[in-house]
Amino acid sequence: MNRDTLEKLLADVQSGKRSVDDALEELKYFPYSDLGFARIDHQREIRTGYPEIIFCAGKSISHVKDIFSHIAATGQNVFGTRADKEKYEAVKSAVNDAVWHEEAKIISVTRKEIIKADNPVAVITAGTSDIPVAEEAAVTAELLGSNVVRIYDAGVAGIHRLVDKLPEIRKCRVVVVIAGMEGALASVVGGLVDVPVIAVPTSVGYGASFNGVSALLAMLTSCASGVSVVNIDNGFGAGFNANMINKL
Amino acid sequence: MNRDTLEKLLADVQSGKRSVDDALEELKYFPYSDLGFARIDHQREIRTGYPEIIFCAGKSISHVKDIFSHIAATGQNVFGTRADKEKYEAVKSAVNDAVWHEEAKIISVTRKEIIKADNPVAVITAGTSDIPVAEEAAVTAELLGSNVVRIYDAGVAGIHRLVDKLPEIRKCRVVVVIAGMEGALASVVGGLVDVPVIAVPTSVGYGASFNGVSALLAMLTSCASGVSVVNIDNGFGAGFNANMINKL
Amino acid sequence: MNRDTLEKLLADVQSGKRSVDDALEELKYFPYSDLGFARIDHQREIRTGYPEIIFCAGKSISHVKDIFSHIAATGQNVFGTRADKEKYEAVKSAVNDAVWHEEAKIISVTRKEIIKADNPVAVITAGTSDIPVAEEAAVTAELLGSNVVRIYDAGVAGIHRLVDKLPEIRKCRVVVVIAGMEGALASVVGGLVDVPVIAVPTSVGYGASFNGVSALLAMLTSCASGVSVVNIDNGFGAGFNANMINKL
Amino acid sequence: MNRDTLEKLLADVQSGKRSVDDALEELKYFPYSDLGFARIDHQREIRTGYPEIIFCAGKSISHVKDIFSHIAATGQNVFGTRADKEKYEAVKSAVNDAVWHEEAKIISVTRKEIIKADNPVAVITAGTSDIPVAEEAAVTAELLGSNVVRIYDAGVAGIHRLVDKLPEIRKCRVVVVIAGMEGALASVVGGLVDVPVIAVPTSVGYGASFNGVSALLAMLTSCASGVSVVNIDNGFGAGFNANMINKL
Amino acid sequence: MNRDTLEKLLADVQSGKRSVDDALEELKYFPYSDLGFARIDHQREIRTGYPEIIFCAGKSISHVKDIFSHIAATGQNVFGTRADKEKYEAVKSAVNDAVWHEEAKIISVTRKEIIKADNPVAVITAGTSDIPVAEEAAVTAELLGSNVVRIYDAGVAGIHRLVDKLPEIRKCRVVVVIAGMEGALASVVGGLVDVPVIAVPTSVGYGASFNGVSALLAMLTSCASGVSVVNIDNGFGAGFNANMINKL
Amino acid sequence: MNRDTLEKLLADVQSGKRSVDDALEELKYFPYSDLGFARIDHQREIRTGYPEIIFCAGKSISHVKDIFSHIAATGQNVFGTRADKEKYEAVKSAVNDAVWHEEAKIISVTRKEIIKADNPVAVITAGTSDIPVAEEAAVTAELLGSNVVRIYDAGVAGIHRLVDKLPEIRKCRVVVVIAGMEGALASVVGGLVDVPVIAVPTSVGYGASFNGVSALLAMLTSCASGVSVVNIDNGFGAGFNANMINKL
Amino acid sequence: MNRDTLEKLLADVQSGKRSVDDALEELKYFPYSDLGFARIDHQREIRTGYPEIIFCAGKSISHVKDIFSHIAATGQNVFGTRADKEKYEAVKSAVNDAVWHEEAKIISVTRKEIIKADNPVAVITAGTSDIPVAEEAAVTAELLGSNVVRIYDAGVAGIHRLVDKLPEIRKCRVVVVIAGMEGALASVVGGLVDVPVIAVPTSVGYGASFNGVSALLAMLTSCASGVSVVNIDNGFGAGFNANMINKL
Amino acid sequence: MNRDTLEKLLADVQSGKRSVDDALEELKYFPYSDLGFARIDHQREIRTGYPEIIFCAGKSISHVKDIFSHIAATGQNVFGTRADKEKYEAVKSAVNDAVWHEEAKIISVTRKEIIKADNPVAVITAGTSDIPVAEEAAVTAELLGSNVVRIYDAGVAGIHRLVDKLPEIRKCRVVVVIAGMEGALASVVGGLVDVPVIAVPTSVGYGASFNGVSALLAMLTSCASGVSVVNIDNGFGAGFNANMINKL
Repeated sequence: MNRDTLEKLLADVQSGKRSVDDALEELKYFPYSDLGFARIDHQREIRTGYPEIIFCAGKSISHVKDIFSHIAATGQNVFGTRADKEKYEAVKSAVNDAVWHEEAKIISVTRKEIIKADNPVAVITAGTSDIPVAEEAAVTAELLGSNVVRIYDAGVAGIHRLVDKLPEIRKCRVVVVIAGMEGALASVVGGLVDVPVIAVPTSVGYGASFNGVSALLAMLTSCASGVSVVNIDNGFGAGFNANMINKL
Repeated sequence: MNRDTLEKLLADVQSGKRSVDDALEELKYFPYSDLGFARIDHQREIRTGYPEIIFCAGKSISHVKDIFSHIAATGQNVFGTRADKEKYEAVKSAVNDAVWHEEAKIISVTRKEIIKADNPVAVITAGTSDIPVAEEAAVTAELLGSNVVRIYDAGVAGIHRLVDKLPEIRKCRVVVVIAGMEGALASVVGGLVDVPVIAVPTSVGYGASFNGVSALLAMLTSCASGVSVVNIDNGFGAGFNANMINKL
Repeated sequence: MNRDTLEKLLADVQSGKRSVDDALEELKYFPYSDLGFARIDHQREIRTGYPEIIFCAGKSISHVKDIFSHIAATGQNVFGTRADKEKYEAVKSAVNDAVWHEEAKIISVTRKEIIKADNPVAVITAGTSDIPVAEEAAVTAELLGSNVVRIYDAGVAGIHRLVDKLPEIRKCRVVVVIAGMEGALASVVGGLVDVPVIAVPTSVGYGASFNGVSALLAMLTSCASGVSVVNIDNGFGAGFNANMINKL
Repeated sequence: MNRDTLEKLLADVQSGKRSVDDALEELKYFPYSDLGFARIDHQREIRTGYPEIIFCAGKSISHVKDIFSHIAATGQNVFGTRADKEKYEAVKSAVNDAVWHEEAKIISVTRKEIIKADNPVAVITAGTSDIPVAEEAAVTAELLGSNVVRIYDAGVAGIHRLVDKLPEIRKCRVVVVIAGMEGALASVVGGLVDVPVIAVPTSVGYGASFNGVSALLAMLTSCASGVSVVNIDNGFGAGFNANMINKL
Repeated sequence: MNRDTLEKLLADVQSGKRSVDDALEELKYFPYSDLGFARIDHQREIRTGYPEIIFCAGKSISHVKDIFSHIAATGQNVFGTRADKEKYEAVKSAVNDAVWHEEAKIISVTRKEIIKADNPVAVITAGTSDIPVAEEAAVTAELLGSNVVRIYDAGVAGIHRLVDKLPEIRKCRVVVVIAGMEGALASVVGGLVDVPVIAVPTSVGYGASFNGVSALLAMLTSCASGVSVVNIDNGFGAGFNANMINKL
Repeated sequence: MNRDTLEKLLADVQSGKRSVDDALEELKYFPYSDLGFARIDHQREIRTGYPEIIFCAGKSISHVKDIFSHIAATGQNVFGTRADKEKYEAVKSAVNDAVWHEEAKIISVTRKEIIKADNPVAVITAGTSDIPVAEEAAVTAELLGSNVVRIYDAGVAGIHRLVDKLPEIRKCRVVVVIAGMEGALASVVGGLVDVPVIAVPTSVGYGASFNGVSALLAMLTSCASGVSVVNIDNGFGAGFNANMINKL
Repeated sequence: MNRDTLEKLLADVQSGKRSVDDALEELKYFPYSDLGFARIDHQREIRTGYPEIIFCAGKSISHVKDIFSHIAATGQNVFGTRADKEKYEAVKSAVNDAVWHEEAKIISVTRKEIIKADNPVAVITAGTSDIPVAEEAAVTAELLGSNVVRIYDAGVAGIHRLVDKLPEIRKCRVVVVIAGMEGALASVVGGLVDVPVIAVPTSVGYGASFNGVSALLAMLTSCASGVSVVNIDNGFGAGFNANMINKL
Repeated sequence: MNRDTLEKLLADVQSGKRSVDDALEELKYFPYSDLGFARIDHQREIRTGYPEIIFCAGKSISHVKDIFSHIAATGQNVFGTRADKEKYEAVKSAVNDAVWHEEAKIISVTRKEIIKADNPVAVITAGTSDIPVAEEAAVTAELLGSNVVRIYDAGVAGIHRLVDKLPEIRKCRVVVVIAGMEGALASVVGGLVDVPVIAVPTSVGYGASFNGVSALLAMLTSCASGVSVVNIDNGFGAGFNANMINKL
């Protein structure tokens, strides 16, 4: 039941077309109708400029293509993560201004201007192998409205590479730290900045890295106070979260 | 080497008291001196109003008492977490305006006014057993400068208790969700709000709760996008982080 | 907003006391009001005869006593699990017909007759150490309205003890199987009966029993088809579930 | 030793053809003969209409084809799970009315009418990636005699999708909830219905989902009382169990 | 139904007192009666000389005392493991020839002579902290009928202590190896002898010993071919198994 | 230093060709020479009839071929496990009486008669998917000198299939039980026989089977006393061990 | 800011070209400049003779080729680990004196003589499957300046193979022990030598080896005192560490 | 068989008192006698100055007291780790120059001068709670012959505290890094020094620290090359190893 139906129902009661009892009966399941929750979704769309963000990994090529076609046709922005080249080409064949962010594995279609936040977000990686996850985070944040300062390969084994970039990092309102192996970078960065750090463990490493578990545990138990953590390899979640904080 | 020493060194070079080579030698380890890093700490103090936050759990009673006495004597604010009553009484004997937040297990001494942020932070728990962790989060955020909306015992098995409070929750700029057992509350709240959610798994539960591991994993794999996670039972980290975001 | 308030609102619209717009505004948060969800809870009470079942483990003695006093005063049934003797005595001092099920660690107050289902529920344990969990299951099912056939110490190492009881077990509509260590009993029983088996792993055992994890995994991977599993040591959940199925 | 052999033995004793001692000797291993246990199997067949349900995953194509041919030739119903298209085609070549439930990966041959229960079973998934497991559950329940209400993609991050369907769900006698990632849907549904919930964790997700372990743990530690759990991705077990409860 | 009842039933059929049909009905549940399985237990008693071995850890003092009194009164041997001194004293008060094997935590009462096997069993430990588990194994084997060669504190860090004892070890028909920490002793012994090695991991160690898990895994993955493993700290199981093999 | 060299050294001392000091120096590292340990190996060969058993999985085709050629040329028996068809064909091209045990993945060459033990060994599996592991065990035991009674697909969900075979099982001196999933069969068999049971968990199963971990834990925590366990899927180890016990 | 810039700044202050305040401002971020940390790196290069060691596994072929070309062009030594043949051939096409250490999966280019330490390093493996990891360790140590004594296939199941080599091992200053499965070799070697033992668990094994976890845990809990451990399969780390100790 | 016995045997052969055959027979088990291995132990004693280091945790008070009395009486040095005050007082009552290193939980008796190495060893901790483990390492290294530079509470969240101490750290030949929680300090130090780093994870932390597992994994997967790891809380192992390397 949407606002229009509800308005009509009330008007009918007012005009005597429907009795109070009859209206009460109809309203019984009204709480579960689309008024309340749909409003939330609508607010989301207004704020982010995106009605939907698509996790392409578990979907068929034709399904992904259809969703992009459908949303793009309405003149709205849309993007999808974890998309390989094959999916991109299928989308491209239907929506010819679709953009391929190769390293991020993101397909985006931009039909409305994205309003950017005043401050940038920093995305820092420990190694070069963490870059795909970092790009997922960075492109996500950019598409949602944040400028991104990328600082890649600044792991703690050569900490001077990080220290060199501190002035630049300190201009950001949120920092995303992406690291595999022992994930120590999150703690080191967390100790050097005064803004929220969103840590993303990656599955980079071998043996006792356990596909990201070591980095995950290290980040969760970080001795630095402003660090919170998202799922292993979840660049999207970090970028989404960083942008959300940046735009508060 | 602090700013004064550095200024004097430069003046000596200017006045010819010291040669350039001699100054170069002295500056060799200068990067590691206290100028740079100490400045960070100083900034922290200015912003948060606290030179130090004490994790009391691993410290002796006399050690805790001494730190509180020392800092309080300088006229600064100070607080400590994971403090039992015995530690509080020891601190109280030395600093008679020390305050005991019993459920939060926090001792605080407030000597300078805490400037509060405009918006509140929400702290929501799934059950009543999660309250000690919630209080650690809430009192931490309050002492650092945020007003807190407490919503306790709103677990998903009786989801109407949460839904009732949605209007209140939506006025907050950050939401801290605290839950043990299956930790589903983080996902449910994350799906209903448009602000960052900081999830705190608790060690509440038995059997396959594995002292908070089930809730931790559930929160990390949440299907809601704006959720990030801190360590099990880490109310302090969540409160610190929430206030940091709230004050951006 | 309950039914009466809603009825009044509609009557006011009908009589012209309120405009449609005004009513629309008031109904905006109506979905989250108590109409819908509270109805669920009310139905629960009608069906089970219990407005609330109390998990006593995480609550203070005085809190437990108060809940019992309050509910008992309304003339309704009430019971609480994981209650030690101290809590029972406190409740007893306020509600003098409170009953103590010692092995089950359950306190119950029965003010309304419990209507029993036609068929019994079987509760079977592998060993004698599993009996406390079994009693929690059995007493829960009894208080909620099922007769219980108890078959204890029928582990697979002496499978004749189980086989002897098959005729009795086959008269039950649901079977609860409770076992620690390797939890094989669930599979054996599941292979011998044609009704749902609810398996409860217990933390009985040592070493590689890992506090019930071995039994839990064994039950989850049971080769018998009608077996489902609840948390380690969760006798209450099994008894509740068994009675729910029994009364369908 | 079957009933006929036993009857003959007794007749021989009666007629004096065999001595009591001789009969005793022959009966020594009788308990382990097929009388008792075979009867169970026979009862199963009568009740379910299926002498055997085949787990095709670990079997060769020709083996699967043979079993289907053999059973179908007797005029009985038969179905097999975890069967890929190749196995289906082999079966089809021998049994030309074999049906392929593609998403469920089930092959079925129906020779006798399946008697349906009065009430339906609900099968609910959190996401679209959970659908294959859901179809395994749904088709299993249908083949065994239950009508199924399918509600897919109703995850807690957009809880209104679930709430919309509550009236439909409440008409069912059993609910199967299928979810990967954090598995919160089981708790949410468990809090909204008054019938048994069988939860199936799926291996959907990445990183800290650990191939379904996070969802499994969350479901086992659910704060809702009527939830029991089967193995990760075990749609068959859930459908079998749901139908068994539904037909009690 | 025991042999006598069965014999009588057959005689009644023979004499015409009972019809074949009537006998068939009575025999329907006969397979599950005590004839078959009870015979097994009886054979056990004859062979081992013990009708029952009691795991005292999960039983009350009075329960343990009663079992000992009851069995001892019948003139049979009986012993119980995991018994503390308090339980021993209770048993002693009732059965005055009860013996206390302090380190093994075993109470035994010997009323019939134990027939010893021809060959001894070796029980070897890596360290002195493993001795309680070793004594449980050794005393169990002795009470069941094996002589035991004890070689304690022969860990691989000082492998000469083991090598010194090789001639003695090689005279045994079975070897029990007991080790905590890295459990390497099982592999080393397994490589030096040609008889079955039963390995018992112990919970001795700290940190990454994980209460015996490291030793358990090491023993399971031993590169030596004749090694099999029992549960962590399960001295009883090893002693029982060793004696069983020794007496084959 | 072998026996001949040692004999010569002593003769030289006796004859005065070498001084005592000189001999002492030469004997310094003698303990570590091949006298002692090599003797062990030699005894092994005599007893088992095999100088070496080859684990083919980690070796190249040409390496495997060479070992077989070399040993076969000496007229001795040789066999290799975990060998695929390609390796068999390579061996066959060099040793034309090489035999291929397909399901067991074993290549064997028999040049000397294998002396069989008097009693057979039982190899029992829970399901048909466990058969490859069972065949590895059975063929290993046969090649080493035991007759094998194979009982496959006797899992506890249909326990009558096992009970039917009890008379046959009870004639064996050792029983190997092979099961995946919940591994309950080991406990059930362990409760029905009086001989050592060697349990082999298999990686059969999915989800919470965790590639054999559930079965492994269940077998380690078995409530039956005579059960010991080998590594997951280690059919060879079980067969080797069973034959070793059988031939004691 | 490097030394030259700093020198110029000081000279400007001395000459009065710049004020003290102006210099102070410029020096504010000086600590984070390249003076200090870069010096460390430079020292490394001088000592090891390598400006960089490349982990090739996560890099593209063209990236690896470029790094080698670039460094080789400067006349310096360079090597890369975890490189497959394809990467080697690409490097070879650009740097024609590149060397391929096939089993070690290492590409090296040597332009400056490597100064060798006086003592050798021992690299010992338990089995032949551990050799690739061993070669990574050995070649790493050789390229960095140590001679290596290789002792392969000396596992504890045939401990005489190890004992035979003790005199040779005892001449080394550091020992690297490489083993999968139960990893017992580290403890045995640790008990026989008086120099540091660096243990490398390998992912060799199956089932409960858990891809090297069993060996890892065994090595961490070794009862021998001089053993430290690196990551699973980390031959490079062990070789690097061994050489570092050897050259102290 | 020791050197004297062997010498006598050879002399007897030389003099004709014994035949070669007779000597051969006697030498059969000679390899396993005390000549070889005892020599090792003796060398150890000479080098370290300690015949034995006692792990007191698993030993009784009287046992510990006896070992100290016995060794001290021979005029040799002795020390024991993991000793509480009660054990110290018992030792003190027998050996009045026994020294109590309270935080290290070490008792030592020094009768011979300890020869110190030229270079110091650094022992660095992340927090104050790591100090007991650090003291165990430091006192162990000191008693074995190394001077120790202690740098405590230099965790990465305040990295300037570490950087301040770099000049001092760089004078050491080995560095022991001790940290709980996320253990990042090992990687940071490993990136700043050119000497071996021995990392000790501690059980300091809560929640996802899992009693040291997080720190352990982080240290094993460190991105810095010269880091090796010992068991959780194993200060002794680190101190022993550091001294061993320092004295090479």
